[in-house]
Amino acid sequence: MKAFMDKDFILQTEVAKKLYHDYAAKMPVLDYHCHINPREIAEDRQFNNITQVWLGGDHYKWRFMRSCGVEEKYITGDASDKEKFMKWAECLGKAIGNPLYHWSHLELQRYFGYTGALSKKTAEEVWNLCNEKLAQPSMSVRNIIKQSNVTLICTTDDPIDSLEWHKMIAEDKSFDVAVLPAWRPDKAMNLEKPDYTDYIQKLSAVSGVEIITFEDLKKALVNRLDFFASMGCLVSDHALEYVMYEPATAEEIETIFNKAMNKMVISRQEEMQFKTAFMTFVCGEYNKRNWVLQLHYGCKRDNNKPMFAKLGPDTGYDCINNYAPSSQTADFLNNLIEKDSLPKTILYSLNPNDNQAIGTILGCFQNSDAVAKIQQGSAWWFNDHKTGMQDQMISLANLGNLSGFVGMLTDSRSFLSYTRHEYFRRILCNLIGNWVDNGEFPEDYDILGEIVQNISYNNAVNYFNFDMLK
Amino acid sequence: MKAFMDKDFILQTEVAKKLYHDYAAKMPVLDYHCHINPREIAEDRQFNNITQVWLGGDHYKWRFMRSCGVEEKYITGDASDKEKFMKWAECLGKAIGNPLYHWSHLELQRYFGYTGALSKKTAEEVWNLCNEKLAQPSMSVRNIIKQSNVTLICTTDDPIDSLEWHKMIAEDKSFDVAVLPAWRPDKAMNLEKPDYTDYIQKLSAVSGVEIITFEDLKKALVNRLDFFASMGCLVSDHALEYVMYEPATAEEIETIFNKAMNKMVISRQEEMQFKTAFMTFVCGEYNKRNWVLQLHYGCKRDNNKPMFAKLGPDTGYDCINNYAPSSQTADFLNNLIEKDSLPKTILYSLNPNDNQAIGTILGCFQNSDAVAKIQQGSAWWFNDHKTGMQDQMISLANLGNLSGFVGMLTDSRSFLSYTRHEYFRRILCNLIGNWVDNGEFPEDYDILGEIVQNISYNNAVNYFNFDMLK
Amino acid sequence: MKAFMDKDFILQTEVAKKLYHDYAAKMPVLDYHCHINPREIAEDRQFNNITQVWLGGDHYKWRFMRSCGVEEKYITGDASDKEKFMKWAECLGKAIGNPLYHWSHLELQRYFGYTGALSKKTAEEVWNLCNEKLAQPSMSVRNIIKQSNVTLICTTDDPIDSLEWHKMIAEDKSFDVAVLPAWRPDKAMNLEKPDYTDYIQKLSAVSGVEIITFEDLKKALVNRLDFFASMGCLVSDHALEYVMYEPATAEEIETIFNKAMNKMVISRQEEMQFKTAFMTFVCGEYNKRNWVLQLHYGCKRDNNKPMFAKLGPDTGYDCINNYAPSSQTADFLNNLIEKDSLPKTILYSLNPNDNQAIGTILGCFQNSDAVAKIQQGSAWWFNDHKTGMQDQMISLANLGNLSGFVGMLTDSRSFLSYTRHEYFRRILCNLIGNWVDNGEFPEDYDILGEIVQNISYNNAVNYFNFDMLK
Repeated sequence: MKAFMDKDFILQTEVAKKLYHDYAAKMPVLDYHCHINPREIAEDRQFNNITQVWLGGDHYKWRFMRSCGVEEKYITGDASDKEKFMKWAECLGKAIGNPLYHWSHLELQRYFGYTGALSKKTAEEVWNLCNEKLAQPSMSVRNIIKQSNVTLICTTDDPIDSLEWHKMIAEDKSFDVAVLPAWRPDKAMNLEKPDYTDYIQKLSAVSGVEIITFEDLKKALVNRLDFFASMGCLVSDHALEYVMYEPATAEEIETIFNKAMNKMVISRQEEMQFKTAFMTFVCGEYNKRNWVLQLHYGCKRDNNKPMFAKLGPDTGYDCINNYAPSSQTADFLNNLIEKDSLPKTILYSLNPNDNQAIGTILGCFQNSDAVAKIQQGSAWWFNDHKTGMQDQMISLANLGNLSGFVGMLTDSRSFLSYTRHEYFRRILCNLIGNWVDNGEFPEDYDILGEIVQNISYNNAVNYFNFDMLK
Repeated sequence: MKAFMDKDFILQTEVAKKLYHDYAAKMPVLDYHCHINPREIAEDRQFNNITQVWLGGDHYKWRFMRSCGVEEKYITGDASDKEKFMKWAECLGKAIGNPLYHWSHLELQRYFGYTGALSKKTAEEVWNLCNEKLAQPSMSVRNIIKQSNVTLICTTDDPIDSLEWHKMIAEDKSFDVAVLPAWRPDKAMNLEKPDYTDYIQKLSAVSGVEIITFEDLKKALVNRLDFFASMGCLVSDHALEYVMYEPATAEEIETIFNKAMNKMVISRQEEMQFKTAFMTFVCGEYNKRNWVLQLHYGCKRDNNKPMFAKLGPDTGYDCINNYAPSSQTADFLNNLIEKDSLPKTILYSLNPNDNQAIGTILGCFQNSDAVAKIQQGSAWWFNDHKTGMQDQMISLANLGNLSGFVGMLTDSRSFLSYTRHEYFRRILCNLIGNWVDNGEFPEDYDILGEIVQNISYNNAVNYFNFDMLK
Repeated sequence: MKAFMDKDFILQTEVAKKLYHDYAAKMPVLDYHCHINPREIAEDRQFNNITQVWLGGDHYKWRFMRSCGVEEKYITGDASDKEKFMKWAECLGKAIGNPLYHWSHLELQRYFGYTGALSKKTAEEVWNLCNEKLAQPSMSVRNIIKQSNVTLICTTDDPIDSLEWHKMIAEDKSFDVAVLPAWRPDKAMNLEKPDYTDYIQKLSAVSGVEIITFEDLKKALVNRLDFFASMGCLVSDHALEYVMYEPATAEEIETIFNKAMNKMVISRQEEMQFKTAFMTFVCGEYNKRNWVLQLHYGCKRDNNKPMFAKLGPDTGYDCINNYAPSSQTADFLNNLIEKDSLPKTILYSLNPNDNQAIGTILGCFQNSDAVAKIQQGSAWWFNDHKTGMQDQMISLANLGNLSGFVGMLTDSRSFLSYTRHEYFRRILCNLIGNWVDNGEFPEDYDILGEIVQNISYNNAVNYFNFDMLK
């Protein structure tokens, strides 16, 4: 029997242990996708207690507490930070099989030196230990990032964002981790939303382009794309219901956009036509700039309306949308390649059933522009656990080129989440170790070590083309 | 190598063995969902031979025999009971990897003391052994139930049912196992069926409510809901193609119902609108009464029309329907929560691909009304095997609160099926044992034992609120 | 740790080793489905180098090379055969977890006696070794087939094919392996294609039936069915997007066919109605002749239009189509059984998520016409790897009769692919070995050996009714 989460956590074979400890562990972290607030880096925030770090905005934990029947008061309500922590500890103690159990204990081990098991029994002890530690300067945001061996961070930013905190960080020579913006223009695309015209007005103001037509919108976006590029942006990100392909003429698109700008009702088909046109346009722009397109899809958001009214978005009320026709995804990518405007692309579906369809779509659009130009993204959000990561990597290996995989994304809302890279690497090394141990691949550490280090870090540097890291 | 189905069957680690033998095995069985006939309990039926118990109505076994090319004569036809058993034994001997192999041998071991392997070679011996045993009073229906350590049974009953057998059992003080009805109103909802108006007439007669409008139907249902409640009912059950959400106005629903009552053609959309309205209404009633809503979906029934004409429903001609949009399921539940009428709910899909979508839907509607108020039901019907149960529990653990799971349902048509609870518990303990053995959770039997015993029995008692068991 | 791909490759237990070495390995190969060119058998082709065999038409390998960022020049372009091989070797060296790694090394071991690992480092050595070997008479096409212990091959042929090479092979008494045609009438069905009328003209010419109506088309097909039957054909094959069921009247079908013959636009619904009628007709004909119906579906083809324009079909640009409603599949089969014209049927979906739906559909249409009359085909194309084969067999075992499975299809475009039967058998024996080793089935080699040998070979002989092999 293996000891609980010791140094060989997840690693079941000698090959896996060697690969992890001798090759993967030492690699830096390239955090090319997260949701942390650049302001907190700029200001080098220090936290008062562990509840602030862990439960301030982590909807994974909130969902789990609700599943345990905890009152909302102790989750997002007005209970004290300590009361919230005590409830959380009680829930976590029973969270067998849930990734939160591993994530939380990896964080307790790596950042707080706590190697026990958090539960109702140990809650008080852990509360005190963490808060003492958090009071030390070594636990400021910047110091957490540095001790996590992070070399570069891409945040998630709206086209209208001023990127002022990114500027401030870039100008501060005392902090040498690159903090770059990532371009996420969902609000400029979602013309079915009630606040769409308000958003377009803001975009107009910040870009200096009066927006009346879709052509105007494109101009405004180009203006902002250029600004983001000037700030070092190399990555875009999109949240789609599914990757749609509903072609329409330029005139039809203008008509639809005009309707939206006049707050007229848009049909579902018109919405999909507009979104197809929008995506086609921005993808061409990404390709010109050698940016990476990230498509996150398969999510239905804000399903609990009463709670949405109270707490807003990203509070733990999203689910998998299992409608994602692979035929439209393939047609969308084909349309781009026909226009010679297909950028490097990473496809992430929230539905793990899409793994194999995605794996076969990749293969249709690969070429010598890049190694594994079209990627399947790492197991994302609800799939970010041992099962999900294994399944994604096994599927990718079966259907494509695992060795070219850009690997883990943090996707975090907390500065302690870098241990998820460790979690991912352990799972990767264990998977490969099992194959080798089972005689399915030679025990050749020149090749194995290179594959593991590339997936852990090097592939992402090369794929995203972060020159400062080369 | 492990011996064939010995005391450590399924249990691969020492932790698993300890959890099963010291914690799970001793727990009683709460059979909250089955299809057994209460009359056979009331009359304390005794069986003449093993074919009556095993092959009398078990369409799982029938399907398997047909897959082996056996003539229908030996399955549902006029061959003798012994001939049928001999054919079945021959088929079972080759049923490697099929859950029937394990179910049948667990039953042979626990109820008949037979530890060999049933096949063509041993058929005669097993036939004689089982029939001798079945002739003993200890093998009457009530004695089977008692020796199976069952504390409570919920049968499956139509709103128009008189529940006379339940009354008789309740009044018989010589039998202390609770036998409660469960409410299954499919026939009152399925207005697309040719015999719908006949059914409505019967419902009218039994409820004393003249049914002309949908409002009348609701009144009649309330009458029967109250009657079922008076008989101790706490559980509803619905068979849906999928969990639909097609809202319509009260007027539209009345128009559709009126069409159906006049035997006019109903469009597919009207059908779904009516069913949405029907489900919304009954869910509100369940919530008022603190009943549990069980939604079984993802099934397409009676696919072989020539055989349906000969044998009727539930004879082995059903398959998975892979159309079940998660968006509608989420919208349906949201509509209920907006109306403050979402009952405790258990979602079961026949399609194992729905596991993850369901797992994420649960999390959107949990609150402090109950621990794990919205549940994913145990691997059901075609998924009721080692793979299916493991996958369901791993998915549930990854995405939600496994420790709050209400566990196994028997869903049986035979009194020997209680061993499926043993099968489930062995699989549960093995899964948890593997996690602990692999260092993924601490070897703390206070926590582990509690989790295992709760999932085996206690969670169901608390969730369904069976007061007599507390 | 197991050695790299030694004699016990894939076999993890003693039971598995015994089953493979003592039972499975010695069975002949029945290649009931492949895409090899009968002309190359008739002419007993000899290859100049390993690139011709391996990279001449193998789009699996092409896709993988594109995923590694290799220029098309080295894949399908004008680079030399040696340059192409060197690029391929470099890619393969990193193909961890991909089935190409195992397929290629099994071929190197069995046909070339090379037991090392092919990579950039060993490329030159392997190039020389293979080419020397290929120059020997023992490596002619016929000798490869004979040393692979193949007893019968079914190629894939269009109704208009003259089958001249099959005739020539049949008449050549020096070669005793049966090479039969298989009937693949996709072009006669796909009336939405631009070259449909050209095809119908050719069919008219070869059958001697003037084709104006759908009735005429049926007559022409009957003519060719009879011809194929006279050449020993017992197997049909269809490539469908999905198994559709859109019934229409005979008049409607004639109208649709007439539109197509006049090159008028056909709606999507009309297309599906026509295809339903076409499939219903040919299935009745297969059933009369006791042929097997093979339905391959779930594929979206030729997704990269620029590459399609350059290279044509079957060049590595296909993906999984995840739209395949199980309800229509069930309705289609029911319609056949109602007409008493359901032939023996094998269902293959490219989408592994369809495994369970298929498994439950089978059970609805089994009867005593044959053991496992309705089959789920072996893991196909993108699923033809360890994970895919295991999942298909576990699902089939859970839901149906694994012991009646007709087993592996080669589906190859290369004469070296017979080692995939070895790969399949090792995976089968390992799966069964694990069950027995885990106490889930008795260690009875009479039963186990029979099951393994039947799935490896005997079931296919009996199911397809290849009299010459009995």
